[in-house]
Amino acid sequence: MTLTASVVGASGFAGGELLRLLSAHPEFEVVQATSREYENRTVGHVHPNLRELDLRFSDPEGLESVDALFAATPHGVSMANVESYLGAAERLIDLSADFRLGTEAAYDEWYDGHTAPEYLDGATYALPELGREGLADADIVASGGCNATATMLALKPLVDADLLQPDDQVVADLKVGSSEGGAGGGAASSHPERSGVVRPYAPTGHRHEAEIEEQLGLSLSFTVHAVDMVRGAAATCHTFPTGPSVEGGVETADLWSAYRDAYEGEPFVRLVAGGGGVYRYPEPKSVAGTNLAEVGFAADGERVVAFAAIDNVMKGAAGQAVHAANLAFGLEETAGLTQTGFHPVGSP
Amino acid sequence: MTLTASVVGASGFAGGELLRLLSAHPEFEVVQATSREYENRTVGHVHPNLRELDLRFSDPEGLESVDALFAATPHGVSMANVESYLGAAERLIDLSADFRLGTEAAYDEWYDGHTAPEYLDGATYALPELGREGLADADIVASGGCNATATMLALKPLVDADLLQPDDQVVADLKVGSSEGGAGGGAASSHPERSGVVRPYAPTGHRHEAEIEEQLGLSLSFTVHAVDMVRGAAATCHTFPTGPSVEGGVETADLWSAYRDAYEGEPFVRLVAGGGGVYRYPEPKSVAGTNLAEVGFAADGERVVAFAAIDNVMKGAAGQAVHAANLAFGLEETAGLTQTGFHPVGSP
Amino acid sequence: MTLTASVVGASGFAGGELLRLLSAHPEFEVVQATSREYENRTVGHVHPNLRELDLRFSDPEGLESVDALFAATPHGVSMANVESYLGAAERLIDLSADFRLGTEAAYDEWYDGHTAPEYLDGATYALPELGREGLADADIVASGGCNATATMLALKPLVDADLLQPDDQVVADLKVGSSEGGAGGGAASSHPERSGVVRPYAPTGHRHEAEIEEQLGLSLSFTVHAVDMVRGAAATCHTFPTGPSVEGGVETADLWSAYRDAYEGEPFVRLVAGGGGVYRYPEPKSVAGTNLAEVGFAADGERVVAFAAIDNVMKGAAGQAVHAANLAFGLEETAGLTQTGFHPVGSP
Amino acid sequence: MTLTASVVGASGFAGGELLRLLSAHPEFEVVQATSREYENRTVGHVHPNLRELDLRFSDPEGLESVDALFAATPHGVSMANVESYLGAAERLIDLSADFRLGTEAAYDEWYDGHTAPEYLDGATYALPELGREGLADADIVASGGCNATATMLALKPLVDADLLQPDDQVVADLKVGSSEGGAGGGAASSHPERSGVVRPYAPTGHRHEAEIEEQLGLSLSFTVHAVDMVRGAAATCHTFPTGPSVEGGVETADLWSAYRDAYEGEPFVRLVAGGGGVYRYPEPKSVAGTNLAEVGFAADGERVVAFAAIDNVMKGAAGQAVHAANLAFGLEETAGLTQTGFHPVGSP
Repeated sequence: MTLTASVVGASGFAGGELLRLLSAHPEFEVVQATSREYENRTVGHVHPNLRELDLRFSDPEGLESVDALFAATPHGVSMANVESYLGAAERLIDLSADFRLGTEAAYDEWYDGHTAPEYLDGATYALPELGREGLADADIVASGGCNATATMLALKPLVDADLLQPDDQVVADLKVGSSEGGAGGGAASSHPERSGVVRPYAPTGHRHEAEIEEQLGLSLSFTVHAVDMVRGAAATCHTFPTGPSVEGGVETADLWSAYRDAYEGEPFVRLVAGGGGVYRYPEPKSVAGTNLAEVGFAADGERVVAFAAIDNVMKGAAGQAVHAANLAFGLEETAGLTQTGFHPVGSP
Repeated sequence: MTLTASVVGASGFAGGELLRLLSAHPEFEVVQATSREYENRTVGHVHPNLRELDLRFSDPEGLESVDALFAATPHGVSMANVESYLGAAERLIDLSADFRLGTEAAYDEWYDGHTAPEYLDGATYALPELGREGLADADIVASGGCNATATMLALKPLVDADLLQPDDQVVADLKVGSSEGGAGGGAASSHPERSGVVRPYAPTGHRHEAEIEEQLGLSLSFTVHAVDMVRGAAATCHTFPTGPSVEGGVETADLWSAYRDAYEGEPFVRLVAGGGGVYRYPEPKSVAGTNLAEVGFAADGERVVAFAAIDNVMKGAAGQAVHAANLAFGLEETAGLTQTGFHPVGSP
Repeated sequence: MTLTASVVGASGFAGGELLRLLSAHPEFEVVQATSREYENRTVGHVHPNLRELDLRFSDPEGLESVDALFAATPHGVSMANVESYLGAAERLIDLSADFRLGTEAAYDEWYDGHTAPEYLDGATYALPELGREGLADADIVASGGCNATATMLALKPLVDADLLQPDDQVVADLKVGSSEGGAGGGAASSHPERSGVVRPYAPTGHRHEAEIEEQLGLSLSFTVHAVDMVRGAAATCHTFPTGPSVEGGVETADLWSAYRDAYEGEPFVRLVAGGGGVYRYPEPKSVAGTNLAEVGFAADGERVVAFAAIDNVMKGAAGQAVHAANLAFGLEETAGLTQTGFHPVGSP
Repeated sequence: MTLTASVVGASGFAGGELLRLLSAHPEFEVVQATSREYENRTVGHVHPNLRELDLRFSDPEGLESVDALFAATPHGVSMANVESYLGAAERLIDLSADFRLGTEAAYDEWYDGHTAPEYLDGATYALPELGREGLADADIVASGGCNATATMLALKPLVDADLLQPDDQVVADLKVGSSEGGAGGGAASSHPERSGVVRPYAPTGHRHEAEIEEQLGLSLSFTVHAVDMVRGAAATCHTFPTGPSVEGGVETADLWSAYRDAYEGEPFVRLVAGGGGVYRYPEPKSVAGTNLAEVGFAADGERVVAFAAIDNVMKGAAGQAVHAANLAFGLEETAGLTQTGFHPVGSP
């Protein structure tokens, strides 16, 4: 049995990655890829890696009936079209922020409100490492934000192990690649201006804080920096845990226990913490092109530094979406996501 | 039926790529990976992308019996050990230059001679697009040089179509990534010195000229430049064809015919020549991480510019070797090599 | 005595570099910097390196009277405004292509014609290394194209020394940085698409061929590649000289003579050809941020490879313009241009 | 009057930068540059930007008598040679860590002890923005660590303004370029391994914490990440001030006051905090090649994020040293340090 899938917003980076993953997926077949701007062009015209794919962009107005509709559109598009999406597909897997938060109030606070709040209850947050409950029955699967994904993967074990408490101090300092800015680009995204940067943006008030607070119950300080890579998001979370498990200090061994407990059996989490050689802590390079997250940590007296590194286009967007879709449709969890990364590698 | 394989010199970049490919290959099973320097270390210690692989480096002195021995050692090692390699394996697939040239005289001219010339007759040049004859019976398969591979893929159709003659002027100007320098590194390969370069090296007298002359019968001018990417080799071949098919000028349509004829049915060659959008000619980025070669051309009066772009670690080394091994062992030609590339991508 | 200067088109990369140079110049004083888009903004708003400069962009319609008007506008703007520019200034130093070619016919052939051809006779090509004649009397100084500049600096000594003849085969293969695309940017210039590239563009028919032919009398094959750096242009010129000085072969010593003769006393040309260490041939990195050109060569039988590397924003644009202006106004030739480069350096 | 200067350890990156600065300095004349490895080679052999400099490396055993000896050697060399350095020079300006801390106990705690503790009292910390007292009389001027310099410049105004208290939580998250690793390089510094990284190193226990604690009285959490640039260090300091000036919240206006007060009249500090355009916060790119520090901040409820960006080879090493030497010798404070930065720029 093959499931049919369409990708709405397929000319963007996450949309192209969905095409890459789904066209090689053992259970899904891509029947439609939409793009207003590139209607009738081959997908390979925009995504040179997909030149062999015999598929052309079509107009998003004429949606075909499918099992799964993956939407990789800018924020606001999915909430405006959710009725037609769910009319065309059994499930909507949405990569925008439109269904990530649980309440209309949250959208009022962090975004410009929500135009289809009645659908929020039917939506489930996608990131499987936070829990697979609800995914099997979800009409709408909301793929998490890339920066939030990296941050939560770093922090979750500390919460689970009763080390980190809701009111503990947590500073998340993110370093991200230029693909997060999307395919459009403006002056700030041009190569001359964006090369070689360490550029703080959203030093405060980043919207991804909202979903982290909802999912993990943590209120954190969150600052994102653009650095010179194309793919990748790395979270360094400086935490000061005071939970009951702390008891006078956190040792490296305690952290190994906490992280192993949290991610035992998880197919897409790899623990990297110390050891020798060149690659001692999580690095985006090491997981580039894959759905893996590298997660690690270091103990420092009363501070615990937690790290996570992902490919923002994969684990932070398209890979997470396919992972959640696999679970939603009852497929093998890792189907279509077993790619290995590269060495050496610049910044894929 | 699974074939057993060992990788000698497995801690280098090409060796690590062989491990990546062979460990996911449907027909091969890696039973040994050797490295003197990292003996007993896990392969993931050196190659962070392979952390999930349950394999440790072993000493190259204790070779196990296998069907295929892949050697990814520095030049000179294979010729010194060819007897023991062929004693341990049915076939040697060699990624060094040690068996690429056909005669001892050529090694005297271009290298420091050859210590096992009696084996040269049993060796077959690997690059399948130049012809698959001999691969099935070869004791030794000699994977081509990365720069030579790109150059020959660009030029072969012009030779086949009787456009380019042996004495025609050909200038090959190559741009290559830092992985060509190998895992060792010296001052010139350090990040501060190697970043942002356009650095001519080997402006004249590059050894890859030798195999191009042997394989294509062309004598060319060959200059290699280091540029700021990790993986990738791009050949721009400026040619001035005078062959019988030229007849008063070469038009773009003639070139399309020549290139289509040459590469029809080739699973790993993709023609890219003009068209719109961002990606109009061959680019290493578009094939990074894959065994594909992008090949293209432009007509310019009496000059024909021929382009080819490859991932030097893949099509220029490990991928070509596996491709040839597939043919040598009678396997499906594309087995283990069907990875799709990425978009966007920096320089994997 | 201070000369007054204005910069028209001051928000672009070359315009900003003119502001940097002129504001620190011992003889010039910047009295106006125009930009329609950023009118009334400080120049530091666009050019962060110039935050200390107390100057705001003004409308180009209200030109002040100055000694020197530097125009760094897109092609076509200067020819449309030449009358008003020369009304406002004693001399126009133009960085566009509008006055680089000598005849209306050339503009018909290579551009879309010329709207003020009566001014072409009063224009002098700026690159001082090609000859300083005419600069002192020129109403219009036409700064050369960056790619043409690098190419001509590499080739001129071969012409002067009667090595290279007008009909000899010359292939110029250029590698250039992203600043050549200007401050605007489009999809192709966005960081995700432009990072890590070796991208042939204008594989044939590049307009800079026209000025090289006019200036050096050479007809060459010219192909430009984008590579991953911001500043820099490197020309590798593969030549096959047959001139009277060739006499059975060109030796390295002949080339040293030719290049030393050509550039003796030139303050902005540095010969780099062989030697040891990391930096053996011309590299854009080594001259980044300076008005220097590195020029070098290698002999290879009947082929001579000539190299030149410049900072395209400096020697290829603003630096060349200031150099020529110094000569036109009878100032010290190197005034304001004595900056030393950097080591280590990525790609400034 | 010209002061004579020698540079010991002149083949390294900081040593080369000292040569660049001092050879163009209006008051200093370089009379000696030492390097064991490159003895008798021209300085341009190692530092291609200095090819015009008529100077050869000499053996450090034969020190000439000078006014100022600048030592840019690895940690431990200066303390071993301090007697001979001070025998040869009126003042030692030391760029290593050997005289940065005030007490032998501190060296026991953070380094491997100190072999010449009797000289510690005669040493003065160089960073002028922390106070110029003592510099005029110092026998030894100890140039600060690059990461400490960036961090302290970000934080000092918060301390001065009674916002930040000694026990307040401060997390400093640093992003640094590859030139910090020095000219030697190893596998981790090779271009293939170092490109495109976000690599945590020294996640805890970085030695620069020691000098920050001594200079500012703050005890902070300090984590350094390697990112893909050559020059540059950026500090993002997440602080939670509780000082008497906080009084129920810190507003942006309060921060402007604090930072303006702290740096009024400082020639090498530039405040950048918000505003429009591409460059809104401190970025290493904007100060690359200069002695400037960009310093900025953002208020976020109870958190204040303080930023600083420097060129680690300049303000973080050679530029700071020359600045301090200017003060020590009673010269114009900015002599030799007035270079303007670049736009656009990759990562010089």
